[in-house]
Amino acid sequence: MDSEQRKRALALIQQALPDLEWTLQAPKVKRLSRDFHWFSPVLKQQLEHKQADAVVRPRSEEELKVLVKACVQHRLPLILRGGATGNYGQLVPLQGGILVDMTGFNQVLQLGEGVVRAQAGIRLADIETVTRPAGWELRCMPSTYRLASLGGLYGGGFGGIGSINYGPLAAPGNVLGIKVMTMEAEPRILEVPAPQALLLHHAYGSNGIVLEVELALAPTHRWVERLDVFDDFTDALDYANAFARSPGLVKRQLALLAAPIPSYFSHLNGHYRASQHAVISVIAQESEGLCAGLLMKHRGHGAVRQAADEAREANASLMEYCWNHTTLHALKVDSSLTYLQTAFDPANYRRQIIAMAALFGDEVISHIEFLRDNDGNITASGLQLVRYSTAERLNEIMQIFRDHDVKINNPHVFHIEDGKQGEIKPEVVSVKQCLDPNGLMNPGKLRGWDVRDTLALDNDPLLLTDR
Amino acid sequence: MDSEQRKRALALIQQALPDLEWTLQAPKVKRLSRDFHWFSPVLKQQLEHKQADAVVRPRSEEELKVLVKACVQHRLPLILRGGATGNYGQLVPLQGGILVDMTGFNQVLQLGEGVVRAQAGIRLADIETVTRPAGWELRCMPSTYRLASLGGLYGGGFGGIGSINYGPLAAPGNVLGIKVMTMEAEPRILEVPAPQALLLHHAYGSNGIVLEVELALAPTHRWVERLDVFDDFTDALDYANAFARSPGLVKRQLALLAAPIPSYFSHLNGHYRASQHAVISVIAQESEGLCAGLLMKHRGHGAVRQAADEAREANASLMEYCWNHTTLHALKVDSSLTYLQTAFDPANYRRQIIAMAALFGDEVISHIEFLRDNDGNITASGLQLVRYSTAERLNEIMQIFRDHDVKINNPHVFHIEDGKQGEIKPEVVSVKQCLDPNGLMNPGKLRGWDVRDTLALDNDPLLLTDR
Repeated sequence: MDSEQRKRALALIQQALPDLEWTLQAPKVKRLSRDFHWFSPVLKQQLEHKQADAVVRPRSEEELKVLVKACVQHRLPLILRGGATGNYGQLVPLQGGILVDMTGFNQVLQLGEGVVRAQAGIRLADIETVTRPAGWELRCMPSTYRLASLGGLYGGGFGGIGSINYGPLAAPGNVLGIKVMTMEAEPRILEVPAPQALLLHHAYGSNGIVLEVELALAPTHRWVERLDVFDDFTDALDYANAFARSPGLVKRQLALLAAPIPSYFSHLNGHYRASQHAVISVIAQESEGLCAGLLMKHRGHGAVRQAADEAREANASLMEYCWNHTTLHALKVDSSLTYLQTAFDPANYRRQIIAMAALFGDEVISHIEFLRDNDGNITASGLQLVRYSTAERLNEIMQIFRDHDVKINNPHVFHIEDGKQGEIKPEVVSVKQCLDPNGLMNPGKLRGWDVRDTLALDNDPLLLTDR
Repeated sequence: MDSEQRKRALALIQQALPDLEWTLQAPKVKRLSRDFHWFSPVLKQQLEHKQADAVVRPRSEEELKVLVKACVQHRLPLILRGGATGNYGQLVPLQGGILVDMTGFNQVLQLGEGVVRAQAGIRLADIETVTRPAGWELRCMPSTYRLASLGGLYGGGFGGIGSINYGPLAAPGNVLGIKVMTMEAEPRILEVPAPQALLLHHAYGSNGIVLEVELALAPTHRWVERLDVFDDFTDALDYANAFARSPGLVKRQLALLAAPIPSYFSHLNGHYRASQHAVISVIAQESEGLCAGLLMKHRGHGAVRQAADEAREANASLMEYCWNHTTLHALKVDSSLTYLQTAFDPANYRRQIIAMAALFGDEVISHIEFLRDNDGNITASGLQLVRYSTAERLNEIMQIFRDHDVKINNPHVFHIEDGKQGEIKPEVVSVKQCLDPNGLMNPGKLRGWDVRDTLALDNDPLLLTDR
C-alpha cells in the first residue's frame, strides 16, 4: 500500500470515526512515531523517514475496537505506542498507518496477594503507587519505569531492576496472563494465561493487541540506594560480584560502571573523581550493615547513599542511572557515543568482563548489569558504551564479542529477529497468523511473517480451543 | 578431671548455689544429655555412656553468670542445651560437667523491618509467631523448628527450609550479630557483630555462651505446601530441578524423596503408591498456577496440597517431612536405616544424583534437598537413607561418594572437625582461647583445642579491641 492509498484509507476512517482523539499534524505525528532509537546512529539514519500517518488515542476498548475494525476493513497498518521509552525503534511504523497511543488504558484492575492486573497503557511507576502500600512492588522493570508503560515492557522489554532476583520478565512465573484483542474484521478479546501468553512478549506489538497484563509481584523492602567508588576496575567488579553472589544479601539492583561513565552523571559527579569506577546498588536496609566490611575488603568508598523512599519522592533515584539510563546520561554529555547489549557466560562472566575491558581500552567502556538468567544462574550482561566511528567498526566490535563467547543482542537493527541472534520461534509467527491474519500490525517488523509459507505454523499456538 | 573429682566440685557448686533450678536424678540427667544422635548407629554406640553430672536451667543472665563463675572456679565442664533436636551428639557432654538448659532464655527482644533479635533458648516457631504478623519469617530453619532453639540452630545448625533462597545460615547477611557470655572467672558479656559473630556458629557451643542472636528475616508469602508424585525418579528430579532453577517461581522449600521413602510417611501414604517418588514443595500462592503445566510436562501428579497457614494450625506441615525429619519418619518404620549428609557439585549435581542413585540401588535411597550455596549457586545436597550393615560398609559408601566428587559432611562422628572434612578454621580455636581460656566448654569436642600450641592463634579474632 503506497502513501497515497494510505492517505485515502485514512481519510475514510477519519470520516467514519470523527469522535476519536486524532492527532494529524505532521510534526506531532512524527514526534510521536519516535522512541529512543537515536541511541543508535545506525537506526537513527535507517528510521529517519519512518513515521505513522496519524495517531489515535482511544479512551475505551470500544473506541479501540471500532478503530481496529476500520483498519482491517481498509487494510491500513496499525502500530501500538506506550511510553515510547524503547531504544530500538520498536514502535516506529515501518510502512505508515495509524499509531495507537495506548496511554488512555491506565488503570490497575486487580490487586491480590503478590499479583496485580493492570491495563497495558499504565506507567510502571503508577502500578507501584498502588501496590506498594499493600507491601508489593514490581519484580522487574526498566530504569525508565517513571514513563514506560506496562504494555511497552511486555511488548519490548527484557527485565532490568529486580532481575537480579527474578530473572528476565520472560522467566516462568513473572507473567501470569494477558488479555489481548485480535486484529480482525470482528475483533475478539481473548484471555491468554502463561506460558502461552509469553508468545506475545517481546514481539514489539506485532502479533496482537495486548490490553491487560497480569504480573506476579515482589515483596517490598526498605531499600537503600548506594553509589560506591573504586580506583581499580577489578576491585569494583569483585565488590559487585560478591554482592550479587551472596544469597544472604538482599538487593534489587547492582550495576558496575567503569570510568569515565560516572563522570557523565552531572548531578552526582561532585561526589567522586572522574577516574573512579562506580557500583550502584539497591540494597535492603537489613543487609546494608555488611557493606562497610565488603567495601573495605575491595578498597571501595561510599560516595552517595540515600533511602529509596526519599529518593523516589525527590525524583532522584539512583535506579535512573542504571540499565539504559546510563546510556542516556552519557549521550547527553558526549553524543559521539553509542552502545552494545551483551550477555556474558554465567560460568565465566568475571573473566570475560576483564578480558573484554582490557581488549578494547577506551573504545568500549564497561557498563555491567548483574542478573539471574532463565535458569536461575547469577550472571552479567553488558550495556557497554562505544565510541562510535563507523557502522562497519561497530559490527566488527560486536563480532569480536561473539568470538569471545559473549552473546550480542544487537540494538542497531529494527527487525525483531535481528535483536535475537537472527531467530524467532515459529510459534510467534503462528500467533500473528491467528491474531493478525492480515499482517497489519507494523508490517515489516517481523521478518518471519514474510517467509511464513516456509514455516510449519501451528493453528492454535495459544491453545484457545482447549479452553 | 575424673568422675570423683567432678562429683566433689559439683557438690560444692550446688551447695553454694542452692537456688538454681537443678536436675540431679541420674535417669533424667541422662535423658537430657541426649539428642537425636541415635540416627547414627555408630554414634549411638560411641556416645552411649556420655552424659552430664547435673542439669541447671538458669532463669536469668545473673543466674547463668554465677553458675559460669562457679564452674570456672572449680574447673568443671559446662555444656549448652537448646531443644536437643540435633542429630550429631552436639550437646552430649564428653567429659561430664553441668549441662545448661537454655530454654529459660526464650524472649523476642527486638523486631525491626526485616530484623529480629531473640534470646538463644527460644524455639524457632515462637520467633515466627511474633514476626509473622509483621510480615516477616525466618530465612532458614531446620524441619525441627517447632522444638529447635535459636541457639541450637546457631550452634549446630546449617540451614534448611528457606536455604533455597538465602543459602546456609552462614551466608553473609543472614546473621547480623550475637551477644555472648565468656567462660571466665569474671564472665564478660560481649556484643559481636557479623562477620566475626560467625566464628561462634556451628562450633557446637564449644567456644562461647551465645545469649542472643540477631537475624535478618525474609518477607512472608502465602505459601502452599504440595506433595507431588512421579513413577519415574528422573522425572521427579527434573520437576524439582526446574522449579528450583526458575527465578520467577517463588518457593521456600524443595525436596526430592525417592521411593520407598514416601511410603514411610504413615499420615500421608494413602495418597499415593509405595513405588512412587515424591517432591515436597512449599510454593508462593502466586507461583502455584504454573505447577499444573510443569507437572504435566514431567508426568507427575498432585497427591497432597494444603495452605501452609492451615497446615501450621493443624500441626501438619509438609515441612516436617523434609530435611532430617525424613530420616526420623523412615527410622520409625525401619530401624535398620541410617543416613548420609552429602553436598553435590553445583555444576554437575543432576548427573551426580542420577549416577549415585543407579550405583547403590536399594542400599542408598535418594533424599535430595535443593538450596543455594554460599556463592549463590543453585545446588543439591543429600540426606540419603542407608540400609545399615556395618560401620566399615558405611565408611566405604561415604568414600565412594567422595570418589565421585560428592562431598560428605559425616554425621557419624562427634568431633567438630570430623563433620567438616576434618578441618577447622584456626580462628574458631582462637575464639575459644579468648572466650573459654580454660577449655571448659564441652572439652573433647573441638580437637583443634588440644593441638592449639601448633596453631598460629589470633589474640583478637572478634576484633574486640577495635570497638
